[in-house]
Amino acid sequence: MAESTRLVDLVQSNIDSFLDAREPELAAIAPELTPFIDFSREFLAGGKRFRALFCYWGWQAVAAPDLFDSDSSKSAAEVSSVLLAATALEVFHAAALVHDDIMDNSDTRRGKPSAHRRFESLHRESNWLGNAAPFGTSSALLLGDLLLSWSDELFADGLQKLASLDARIAARTEFTAMRMEVTVGQYLDILEESAWARQPEAEQLSRANRVIVYKSAKYSVEAPLAIGASLGGGSLAQVAALRDFGLPLGVAFQLRDDMLGVFGDPEVTGKPAGDDLREGKRTVLVAIARQRLTPSARRLLDELLGDPEMTESQVGMLQATIRDSGAVDEVERIIDANTRSAVEAIADAPLSRSARAQLTSLADTVIRRTA
Amino acid sequence: MAESTRLVDLVQSNIDSFLDAREPELAAIAPELTPFIDFSREFLAGGKRFRALFCYWGWQAVAAPDLFDSDSSKSAAEVSSVLLAATALEVFHAAALVHDDIMDNSDTRRGKPSAHRRFESLHRESNWLGNAAPFGTSSALLLGDLLLSWSDELFADGLQKLASLDARIAARTEFTAMRMEVTVGQYLDILEESAWARQPEAEQLSRANRVIVYKSAKYSVEAPLAIGASLGGGSLAQVAALRDFGLPLGVAFQLRDDMLGVFGDPEVTGKPAGDDLREGKRTVLVAIARQRLTPSARRLLDELLGDPEMTESQVGMLQATIRDSGAVDEVERIIDANTRSAVEAIADAPLSRSARAQLTSLADTVIRRTA
Repeated sequence: MAESTRLVDLVQSNIDSFLDAREPELAAIAPELTPFIDFSREFLAGGKRFRALFCYWGWQAVAAPDLFDSDSSKSAAEVSSVLLAATALEVFHAAALVHDDIMDNSDTRRGKPSAHRRFESLHRESNWLGNAAPFGTSSALLLGDLLLSWSDELFADGLQKLASLDARIAARTEFTAMRMEVTVGQYLDILEESAWARQPEAEQLSRANRVIVYKSAKYSVEAPLAIGASLGGGSLAQVAALRDFGLPLGVAFQLRDDMLGVFGDPEVTGKPAGDDLREGKRTVLVAIARQRLTPSARRLLDELLGDPEMTESQVGMLQATIRDSGAVDEVERIIDANTRSAVEAIADAPLSRSARAQLTSLADTVIRRTA
Repeated sequence: MAESTRLVDLVQSNIDSFLDAREPELAAIAPELTPFIDFSREFLAGGKRFRALFCYWGWQAVAAPDLFDSDSSKSAAEVSSVLLAATALEVFHAAALVHDDIMDNSDTRRGKPSAHRRFESLHRESNWLGNAAPFGTSSALLLGDLLLSWSDELFADGLQKLASLDARIAARTEFTAMRMEVTVGQYLDILEESAWARQPEAEQLSRANRVIVYKSAKYSVEAPLAIGASLGGGSLAQVAALRDFGLPLGVAFQLRDDMLGVFGDPEVTGKPAGDDLREGKRTVLVAIARQRLTPSARRLLDELLGDPEMTESQVGMLQATIRDSGAVDEVERIIDANTRSAVEAIADAPLSRSARAQLTSLADTVIRRTA
């Protein structure tokens, strides 16, 4: 995976240069704006960079050059365009996480304080007037907005370097669709937390699936692949094959996330144990468990789920209830089936051999992760 | 102002077509997404369209065609590009207002419920589970994010129609700068509400001025003009003249807004009387009043300002205190001086005669408004 490692380094280096360039601009407006750069650096450091990787390999799948190959027929400008697009996706993701943590009222992100908590601390440490919490929330909302605009700037900078007008239009169309889908997907997610009990029992699983598809599968895997392929001028057949790989893998990716949200090790995930249970996320895992539980066990689960004051032992009990229902095994089966279907979709697809190998290996990383 | 009226109609028609096109896309994802379209329509209906107008007249100032002039040397594509950019600015503004109302905890916008209150009502009327208020806030945060992405899309669509690469780059640079400046300007605004008391007394006025410049003057007037002029391939001298007009006029625009926030008629502004006093905005008006008050009167003002529970009679008392200090007359003088300086900046500038006349007339509208 030397090429993937190199890509991740180049994306980090793009992020660093971008923030280095913004720092004096903000300082010229007001010295008090330093936290916007400092917090952006923190939230943009590390992470798994899956979106950047899928964007890069989506492009590589149709363009087939090696990043290190000096004989490549692809221009340096095109490579630079793909790197900027991949960087834009990571900056967009940071924005989404900052806003997501506000909505979920999360104290931590990757084991460190979330953006709104950081601004809240800044307020407190500076001994400013008024309530620290709303100041934290408003500031993080603005940080998210700024990151959204920076993401757009990076993406536009990337497109600017692309010679083909068709590729520019296709890539922007994918980027635009991605932003709309993930935003409404997040709405469907919070809607489900409130609205699920007013929906027919028979629709719970399909509603949970709908959230996964829009909030995560398309956003995290399918769209980055399609954006990358569009940048490389991929044919309809190539983009379709990448979608057929991306969507089921994206669903598997989110199912793994849902499992980690309930059973993940706080030391590894950087989130409290059973975080999703306290938040009351109506995931596919929960929907399947509910189908398999007796009415009385289901009522107990429904009553506890979403209680922010849930104790450790209640978390443990819910974990056991979900596991004993057979839902965990069932979700593992779905993850396996989706991953197989993803890998099969590109096995004979008109995509570069090296990209197919890397995507298959990435699929493995994505669904086996522990954080 | 027939041309301005026509422009406002065309922007509205662009907004309508854009939302008409998004409606089936969202409905295909989930029928529950209807509120995103319905609320967007409401928040994008009406308004003064100052940003669209300044964008259009900034373009017209350097390009000089008449929108109705069939002999115009400017291509239909360029006109369409300017209209899309003007529309993008209005959609961006709607996004900013939706997020702003969350931060200010405002119940109303133009006399109707704000976005987060609308989603909160939807939650209540649907009899969903959990707290309606955080659902309202999260949903409005997402609506704002969606509007931001739609604004980008409209702006990019506009640029796409422009033949000149230089004009595309220049206009995008202005758009990007505008987004960054208004976002950090809003941060400086909320920062001042919390941090002012920890700053030296002598800096209060200059800090309030800094907020005005970034949150409002550049955003509402200078940037739209610069974007418009860039779309028309304006020369450096032309763009500079428009900036010299836009910045002081923008400051005057916000000073008028600050006066309306304290003394405005709720029937006309659609906001409660003395809204800014309850919010504790540290405006230029307040900074000037503080400089002129006795220490004891200043302490009283500082104690009351920002109290959300302020009574009608306390609002009345603060209004009288500010007026009696002479701050209102002083702000009126600054508004006049800035407006004169704005109008003088374009009197002999290398800009089309018709645009100079329209901008001068717009300046008058902007500072004489009552809502």
